[in-house]
Amino acid sequence: MSGRYYYAFFERFSRAYARHPSLSKVLVVSTVSGGGLVAYYNVGDSTRVAHADAGLVGPPKKKVVVLGTGWAATSFLKGLKSTSYDVEVVSPRNYFAFTPLLPSVTNGTVEARSIVEPIRNIVNKKGPHCEFREAECYKIDAHNKKIHCRTTQASSLRGNEEFTVDYDYLVIAVGARANTFNTPGVEENAHFLKEVEDAQKIRRSVIDCFERASLPCVSEEERKRLLHFVVVGGGPTGVEFAAELHDFVHEDLAYLYPTLRSYVKITLLEAGDHILSMFDKRITAFAEEKFQRDEINVKTGSMVVKVSDKEISTKERVTGHVVSVPYGMVVWSTGIGTRPFVMDFMKQVGQTNRRALATDEWLRVEGTDSIYALGDCATINQRRVMEDVSAIFSKADKSGSGMLKLEDAREVVKDICERYPQVELYLKMNKMKDFADLLKNAEGVKSTELDIEMFKKALSAVDSKMKFLPATAQVAAQQGTYLANCFNRMEECEKNPEGPLRFRGTGRHRFHPFQYKHLGQFAPLGGEQTAAQLPGDWVSIGHSSQWLWYSIYASKQVSWRTRMLVISDWGRRFIFGRDSSRI
Amino acid sequence: MSGRYYYAFFERFSRAYARHPSLSKVLVVSTVSGGGLVAYYNVGDSTRVAHADAGLVGPPKKKVVVLGTGWAATSFLKGLKSTSYDVEVVSPRNYFAFTPLLPSVTNGTVEARSIVEPIRNIVNKKGPHCEFREAECYKIDAHNKKIHCRTTQASSLRGNEEFTVDYDYLVIAVGARANTFNTPGVEENAHFLKEVEDAQKIRRSVIDCFERASLPCVSEEERKRLLHFVVVGGGPTGVEFAAELHDFVHEDLAYLYPTLRSYVKITLLEAGDHILSMFDKRITAFAEEKFQRDEINVKTGSMVVKVSDKEISTKERVTGHVVSVPYGMVVWSTGIGTRPFVMDFMKQVGQTNRRALATDEWLRVEGTDSIYALGDCATINQRRVMEDVSAIFSKADKSGSGMLKLEDAREVVKDICERYPQVELYLKMNKMKDFADLLKNAEGVKSTELDIEMFKKALSAVDSKMKFLPATAQVAAQQGTYLANCFNRMEECEKNPEGPLRFRGTGRHRFHPFQYKHLGQFAPLGGEQTAAQLPGDWVSIGHSSQWLWYSIYASKQVSWRTRMLVISDWGRRFIFGRDSSRI
Repeated sequence: MSGRYYYAFFERFSRAYARHPSLSKVLVVSTVSGGGLVAYYNVGDSTRVAHADAGLVGPPKKKVVVLGTGWAATSFLKGLKSTSYDVEVVSPRNYFAFTPLLPSVTNGTVEARSIVEPIRNIVNKKGPHCEFREAECYKIDAHNKKIHCRTTQASSLRGNEEFTVDYDYLVIAVGARANTFNTPGVEENAHFLKEVEDAQKIRRSVIDCFERASLPCVSEEERKRLLHFVVVGGGPTGVEFAAELHDFVHEDLAYLYPTLRSYVKITLLEAGDHILSMFDKRITAFAEEKFQRDEINVKTGSMVVKVSDKEISTKERVTGHVVSVPYGMVVWSTGIGTRPFVMDFMKQVGQTNRRALATDEWLRVEGTDSIYALGDCATINQRRVMEDVSAIFSKADKSGSGMLKLEDAREVVKDICERYPQVELYLKMNKMKDFADLLKNAEGVKSTELDIEMFKKALSAVDSKMKFLPATAQVAAQQGTYLANCFNRMEECEKNPEGPLRFRGTGRHRFHPFQYKHLGQFAPLGGEQTAAQLPGDWVSIGHSSQWLWYSIYASKQVSWRTRMLVISDWGRRFIFGRDSSRI
Repeated sequence: MSGRYYYAFFERFSRAYARHPSLSKVLVVSTVSGGGLVAYYNVGDSTRVAHADAGLVGPPKKKVVVLGTGWAATSFLKGLKSTSYDVEVVSPRNYFAFTPLLPSVTNGTVEARSIVEPIRNIVNKKGPHCEFREAECYKIDAHNKKIHCRTTQASSLRGNEEFTVDYDYLVIAVGARANTFNTPGVEENAHFLKEVEDAQKIRRSVIDCFERASLPCVSEEERKRLLHFVVVGGGPTGVEFAAELHDFVHEDLAYLYPTLRSYVKITLLEAGDHILSMFDKRITAFAEEKFQRDEINVKTGSMVVKVSDKEISTKERVTGHVVSVPYGMVVWSTGIGTRPFVMDFMKQVGQTNRRALATDEWLRVEGTDSIYALGDCATINQRRVMEDVSAIFSKADKSGSGMLKLEDAREVVKDICERYPQVELYLKMNKMKDFADLLKNAEGVKSTELDIEMFKKALSAVDSKMKFLPATAQVAAQQGTYLANCFNRMEECEKNPEGPLRFRGTGRHRFHPFQYKHLGQFAPLGGEQTAAQLPGDWVSIGHSSQWLWYSIYASKQVSWRTRMLVISDWGRRFIFGRDSSRI
């Protein structure tokens, strides 16, 4: 309403500037009655693409179907520049959610709407060859190259309909669901923290507990139960949620429910020995100390065995006893599981007894030739050196003499290191300069020549350095970008393969294999404290990393829109506090 | 998080300024990495009152129980300054919602959270003698002066509990519910627009219709059905919703769903002859014309007789036929009904066959002595002059001669006009100078004396000018403030009654009766157009009243918090457009 007039003004403004791309971002500060307002207008965003009925001439395009709208799918979509594909995105969620801020949504530091981006904003910018369907894929038919989908809109639209979509390439990026490890009662009684709706439910639930506890009919004991919040899982999400909840309770709710302050108790349960075990020890220690100061009750070595409607039971590793405590709300944030239709598909392609879809280093699902999987629903099944050791040896031994010369080996070192990243990691861990070092140091190597047995012995320990990538947004986003680049240069690389040597076959692989670049990890600990672990063992704790965290969040993946909304939410919160209305 | 540091700074800042009340509002503009931020900090808000266990000495306080947290209840609460009561507020909603902006929430012009204010923010400022209970009153026991309540928190808290609350005074301000007039299928298939949750549901439902319509499995016919939005009721809410929906569809969704634009149809059904019939004819005509230009299909004389799951049936007044049309979503915004427990209470106090709780002019429920009702759940049963005409005559005829002299009458004119506001209205409508004029002009009056028959004849037409107050936020808010003032001065006015003469009894009424002051009414019509009807027949249409509307909304009732949030939402919207994510 108020905006429309200004909107016109902005449109005009932006059209003028659009001709000068260097000025494509415009910062306008204006004052509106009664308050100030800073308007950041991203001109690029306004050039919405109108779909034209493109009567295209040329060879029929290949159809890429993308399942999902999370980190992996969205960065794939954003990275896909080639217009030589018809793209169809299928997902029950018509938005991308900036999940690292989910814990902040649970208590209203940030609004749910501020961390989501309508997927159609992204899809429409791609032009008429890209479409979005809000539906759920429930079956993949790899044989006939089609997927079966059904609608997910509210029942008010009467009945769910089904349809199929054909594909030439299928990109599976549907993420994971929470893993209850079949613990009884978790599904029914605990909250999860995977989706935006989960975060909103948790928020309402916290307020519910406080409102119920302030009624006169509630006994002392019941009041204590209601205000006992239990978080299961000491990973980054669980820890951040516990910290955010503590801040919410002590900074905001304590003022609104002054008589209840003393009843509140927050417990963090972790089955392992330490919380944040994937982080550096210094960070773990700091977090545990801080939580102790904050009176967040951290219980390690405590495995949840049952969640009933009012009690949670844990088995204590030290004593071996099962202990039950009453609770008001449980948030379950430990482990990820496979979605049922992915499980079904895994059976189809002969992947049973795995926790996620196995792919090769190029993210292609093993046992298929046109299906890719990335993000939390997939795991890269890295090739062992020992599997291919004979093939490597014969490729390296150009003369075919059965004895490999060190200088001959040098020629294939780059390819080996690229194809088997564990080699490079092994060298680094053992402080070796290069591959020749590894061969020279092997037992029994006397001269500059090795036979196959010596070669095998030299490489025998290398595979121990293989590692799985963590199920994080960072990995998913990098995989999406990587795969998009492959798709962008599909034709080009078909002609001029750029990947490493095929040790078992001939020629080279089309693309370089996916390589993850770890940019560090953050764990916000509440009260302006953030722990950061950055590449190269750099650890930072406290205010400075808080700002580092913000600046990373303000610069990654998300649109300018999301960035501004989040910043304005932070602003709102520090001015007005968090809101406790149960909506 | 980011805020905490600044928060400390603000707290310090504000404590310093709190000593200089004239500077109690501080405007701070600061810049945060990557964007600007304007921080308005209301120092008054930060002085949260901590409840102390007040071991008060003195006579036991009277207990006031307030039911509801809407306009009437909230302004009563805000206006209640006296500390000589214990106040307990009971409502299933722990927030006050700024309802005039509900239509804006349906399409994301404004966020739900921005138009609500936690009731505990208001309650806590009152100090320890004021409490809030999130529960629903399901029965009033006027005989024993207690109410029966039950909890309303989510079922995840296991079971609903019940409790009772005693009162000395009960203030019923629970509002109304939507009235379906028992039309079949409305309850099941239509959306209402009374609560914040309703608005959120409507928003999701609109997006659902668009998402479903863009699926490949949907037929042309079905697509048309899905994108046919029907609004029932041509009052201000229905009209504003239709206008907002039109803007949402044409300004935002048209870009996100470009292929669907031509399928969208909005129909506004009104049983009467015109939409906005309570407004000036000029406004009605303008609105009807504007809607025609916007291609919003306005159908007057069309009464809904049935809503099935996919079709809405109307009886057309002109033809008498029943017509059915397929729809995607129906919003029902016509008429208000009584809540079941209020209906039950009305039976208790002998008020049957009424649409709302009848009160006297002091807002006291008829048939009770310590229960008050205000807002949409109540209606003032104005006393007829003709009922009291003999009593009035004898009070005025001080000599008791049976003949009333005009100059004697003058002494009671003020009291008559105050006690029976219809008199003043009648004088004004008939362009009479004063009450004496009325008596003089009566048929058969020859001299300056009247007998009772002449007096009756003179006043016989006056009661035709009685009118019911509309069920608006404005009325509710004024009633709340009025009642709070009465409570504030209860003791004082007990001793020195300030109201008009009791014509039937002796002495004076304690208080002046409630008088409604109409401040005008607004009807936003979409696309920067707002129609305003202000007191004194002043009509304003267009941009200017748009700004008038904003300034009123920015200055009434709401806290600075809500005001700033709404303004920042408007800002967000005009920069980034509305969001279409289905959350």
